[in-house]
Amino acid sequence: MADEKTYHMAPKEFQRYGKAVIDWISSYQARVESFPVLSQVEPGQIRSTLPPDPPKSGEPFEALLADVEKLILPGITHWQSPNFFAFFPGNVSGPSILGELLSAGLGVQGMLWATSPAATELESHVLDWLASMLGLPAHFLSSGSGGGVIQDTASSASLCALLAARERATGYETNRRGCDGSLTAYTSTQAHSSVLKAIKIAGIGEDNLRLVEVDENFALRPQALAESIERDKQVGKTPCFVCATVGTTSSEAIDPVAEIGRICREHGVWLHVDAAMCGVAAMCPEFRYIQRGIELADSYCFNAHKWMFTNFDCDCFYVADRAALIRTLSVSPEYLRNRATESGAVIDYRDWQIPLGRRFRALKLWFVIRHYGVEGLQYHIRRHVEVAQDLAARVQKDERFELAAPAPLNLVCFRHRGGDSANEILLDRLNRSGKIYLTHTKLAGQFTLRFCAGQTHTELRHVERAWRLIQHEASALGNSAVSP
Amino acid sequence: MADEKTYHMAPKEFQRYGKAVIDWISSYQARVESFPVLSQVEPGQIRSTLPPDPPKSGEPFEALLADVEKLILPGITHWQSPNFFAFFPGNVSGPSILGELLSAGLGVQGMLWATSPAATELESHVLDWLASMLGLPAHFLSSGSGGGVIQDTASSASLCALLAARERATGYETNRRGCDGSLTAYTSTQAHSSVLKAIKIAGIGEDNLRLVEVDENFALRPQALAESIERDKQVGKTPCFVCATVGTTSSEAIDPVAEIGRICREHGVWLHVDAAMCGVAAMCPEFRYIQRGIELADSYCFNAHKWMFTNFDCDCFYVADRAALIRTLSVSPEYLRNRATESGAVIDYRDWQIPLGRRFRALKLWFVIRHYGVEGLQYHIRRHVEVAQDLAARVQKDERFELAAPAPLNLVCFRHRGGDSANEILLDRLNRSGKIYLTHTKLAGQFTLRFCAGQTHTELRHVERAWRLIQHEASALGNSAVSP
Repeated sequence: MADEKTYHMAPKEFQRYGKAVIDWISSYQARVESFPVLSQVEPGQIRSTLPPDPPKSGEPFEALLADVEKLILPGITHWQSPNFFAFFPGNVSGPSILGELLSAGLGVQGMLWATSPAATELESHVLDWLASMLGLPAHFLSSGSGGGVIQDTASSASLCALLAARERATGYETNRRGCDGSLTAYTSTQAHSSVLKAIKIAGIGEDNLRLVEVDENFALRPQALAESIERDKQVGKTPCFVCATVGTTSSEAIDPVAEIGRICREHGVWLHVDAAMCGVAAMCPEFRYIQRGIELADSYCFNAHKWMFTNFDCDCFYVADRAALIRTLSVSPEYLRNRATESGAVIDYRDWQIPLGRRFRALKLWFVIRHYGVEGLQYHIRRHVEVAQDLAARVQKDERFELAAPAPLNLVCFRHRGGDSANEILLDRLNRSGKIYLTHTKLAGQFTLRFCAGQTHTELRHVERAWRLIQHEASALGNSAVSP
Repeated sequence: MADEKTYHMAPKEFQRYGKAVIDWISSYQARVESFPVLSQVEPGQIRSTLPPDPPKSGEPFEALLADVEKLILPGITHWQSPNFFAFFPGNVSGPSILGELLSAGLGVQGMLWATSPAATELESHVLDWLASMLGLPAHFLSSGSGGGVIQDTASSASLCALLAARERATGYETNRRGCDGSLTAYTSTQAHSSVLKAIKIAGIGEDNLRLVEVDENFALRPQALAESIERDKQVGKTPCFVCATVGTTSSEAIDPVAEIGRICREHGVWLHVDAAMCGVAAMCPEFRYIQRGIELADSYCFNAHKWMFTNFDCDCFYVADRAALIRTLSVSPEYLRNRATESGAVIDYRDWQIPLGRRFRALKLWFVIRHYGVEGLQYHIRRHVEVAQDLAARVQKDERFELAAPAPLNLVCFRHRGGDSANEILLDRLNRSGKIYLTHTKLAGQFTLRFCAGQTHTELRHVERAWRLIQHEASALGNSAVSP
C-alpha cells in the first residue's frame, strides 16, 4: 500500500525535534535567572515582530524553535524564576512537564469513562490519594458519598459548587425554571474575585451576594455571617451558598471554617471552602490546622497548579455529595450514550464540570506525587514557609517597614511606613529592575506589598537577595517621595 | 553558596527522561494501530492495579514510565488511531504536541497581559490569522471592534456568548440583579447539549430555551425560529440569544446562518454560531459556503482541537463586539491591578472567559499553522472529506444500508435497513472487535451509526478496511437479529 502524500511531521522528525525542545527547556531552566522576571516589553511590541499573514507553505521546525527564543522570550514574564514572588506561585516541575507531554502525546479525550477508562480511574485514584495526604474527611473520597475531580481553576470549582448549592436549595428546580431573585450567597470582603464572577454567571446577581466583614486578621467574622443569613431569612430570601477561604489571595487570611460550618449546618446552607492559594500546606501535619472544621464543608478545592509543582491547569475539587453535583450538571444527549454509562458503574467526569471535553490531567498529578513522594512534597512546602518566615522576621527588624497582616505560611504582606506613594514607587522600581517581581494589594485601605515564596527553585538565598534589593530601593527613596 | 537539599528532578535527569518520553510517544504512535481502538477493560479494572496509598518516598522516573505502558495503556481508548471514527475527531500532530510541551516548560500564567505579554499578543495574532484563513468578517478581528480568544471548549464559548447576550439584552443589569425569568433563548432540536447546559448555568432555565424544529436535513427552520421569537415577544418575554450550528454533532447538519442572522437582526437578538465540529473546513474555499451569513453573527467558534491537528484544549472563539464580552465578564480586584491594564492599551484575556487563570495555548496553534502552512491544512481537510465521501458512496451502493442524513463533509450517518436492534448489534460487535470505533446517534427517531473521518493518520485504506468490517458484520447479523 503506497503511503499518501502528507504534510504531517514524520516520526523521525518528531523524535529529533522533540529532543531539541527538551534540550531547549533544560537550557531555559538553566538561564531563567538571567532574564528580567517581569517582561519589559511595551504593549504591541511582540505582535509587531510577527508577520501579518499566515504562511501559505509550511516552515521547518527549526525556524519555529528559533522564533520562540528570539520573538517570544522577550515577552515572557518568568513565572519559573526563583525570583518570582508575585501573585501566587505557579510552580512546575520535571515530572509534571513530562506528565503533560505524555498526556499531549496520548491525545485522549476523557469526557466519558468509555472514552479512556484510565483517564477517569487514575483521576479518581490520585484525588483519593490527595484527600488522604491532606487529611480530608472520608465523605470526600470516591469510596464515600462524594469524590474528587480536576477542574481547570478554582474559579470553575467555585462556580460548580455554587450551581450545586443553587439547585439543592431550590429542589433542583432552578435549572428548569431559571433564577427568580430569591437566593442569596455569602463570602468575606477578602474572598477571591471569582466568587463574585460566579454569582454573576449563575444568574443570582451581585445584589444578592453579601460581602461579610472580616476581623483584624482579614478573616471572616462568623457572627457577622450568622446575622447576615438571619436578616435575609427574615425578609424571605433563601440563603444557599457560603464560600469560606483558607488562605485569601490578598493576604493568606484563614477563615474560621469550623465556626462557619456550624452556621451553615444550622441554616442548611452549602459551604464551599476555597483553599486554592495554600490548601496544599495541610499536607504537613503542623499546618493542617488551617482547615479545621473541613468536615462541615460540602465542597473544597485547592490548586495543585499553584504550590504543588504541577502545571496549570490542575485545581483539585471535592464534593461531599457527588449526586448533588451530577444532578446539577448532567445533560445526556443520545450521541454520548454508551453501555458503561448506563450500567451506573462508572464515573463520567463531564457531569462534574462546566465544559464537556477534558484532557488527561491526572497523569501529571500522578507523576508529581510519585516522583516527590509525600515526604518530598512536605519538605519543599516546609522550606517555602521557612524562607517566607525568614523574610517576615527581617521586615519586622527594619524599622522603615511593617507587616500588614499575619504571615502564617508562604505569603508576607508588608509595607514601607512612608505611605502609599512610597510603596507604589518602591514596587515600580523593584519590578522595573527585572531582578525580582512582586505585586501588591490593599489591606485596611493601604497599599501593601505582597511577597509570595513558592516557586520551585526559590531558596533562602533568593529571598535574602530580594530583601537586600528592597532595602536598597527603600534607602534610595529619599525623603521627597515619602508622605508624612 | 551551597545548594540546598532537594527532591526536584535535576536538569540532566530532565533531559534524559524527557528524551525517553519523546521516544515513548514516537513508539506509541508507531504501535497505535496494534491496540483495540476502544479500551476493552471493565469498570474498576485500572484502579484495581494501583496501590491504595500514595508513596511516602519518591520513585524513579523509569518506574513511572513503565507503569504508563503496563497499567495505563490497557485503559486507553485510542483517539489517535487512524481507525478511530467515533464522536468527532480529536486529532493531534507533532508540532502541536511540541507546542504544548514548550508551554508546559515555560510554565507561564496568561491571565493578564503583564503576566506574559507574548502569551496574549501571540494569541490575538494567531486568532487574527485564523479569522483570515476562514474568511471571517473583519469585525471579528482584534483590529476591528471584536477579536478572538482561545477557550477550553465550545461549551465554554457558548456560555460566554450566552452571558454577553443576557447582559446586552438587559442593559448589563442581570449581572447585578440576577435573572428574573423574562429571558428566552433559541436553538435547534439538533444543537449540542452544551447549549442547554449553558442555559441552566446562566440561570435562564430550561423552560426558557426553545428547541426549534428542523427540516428534513436536520437544519434549523428559520420560519419556525421567527415564529417562536414572535410568540415570546407577544407574551412579554425578552428573546436574547440564538445559537445556530454549522455542523451539528449528531449529523453535521448546517443551519442556514444567513436567514437566521436576518431574523436575529430584526429582533435585536444575539446570534452565536457554533461551528465546533467542522467550521475549520471553511479554510477550503469550496467548503466556505457552510458559514454563509456569518457576517450577521455576534459570536462564532470552532474547535482547533477537533479537526485542526491541535491538542485539546483549543476552542477558537470570536466576538464582533469585545466591549460587550468584557463588560459581562470583567471583575477587577486590587491584587490584579497593574499599570498595563490601566493604560487601556492591552488585552487581559481573563475578562474574555469564565476562569481567571489560563495557560499559553497560542504556542501550539502557532506551531501547527506554521508547520503545515495554509496549504497543508487545506490538503488534509480535503483528504478527510474525500475519504468520508468515498464511504458515503459505498454505503449507497450496498442495498442493505442507507444514508440517514446528507454527508456534506467528513461525517457519514448511515444505518442498516434491518432496524434499531440490528444497528445496535452491529455497533456493539464492531466496537468489541477493537478493530474500529464508531458511535451512534438517533435521527428521526432511528438508531443511526456515525462514521467520522478526521484523525491525523486516517487514510483511504483505513476507511476501506472499516467498510469491509462493517459489511462482514452485516453479513454475520443473520436474519434472527433483523427486525422487519
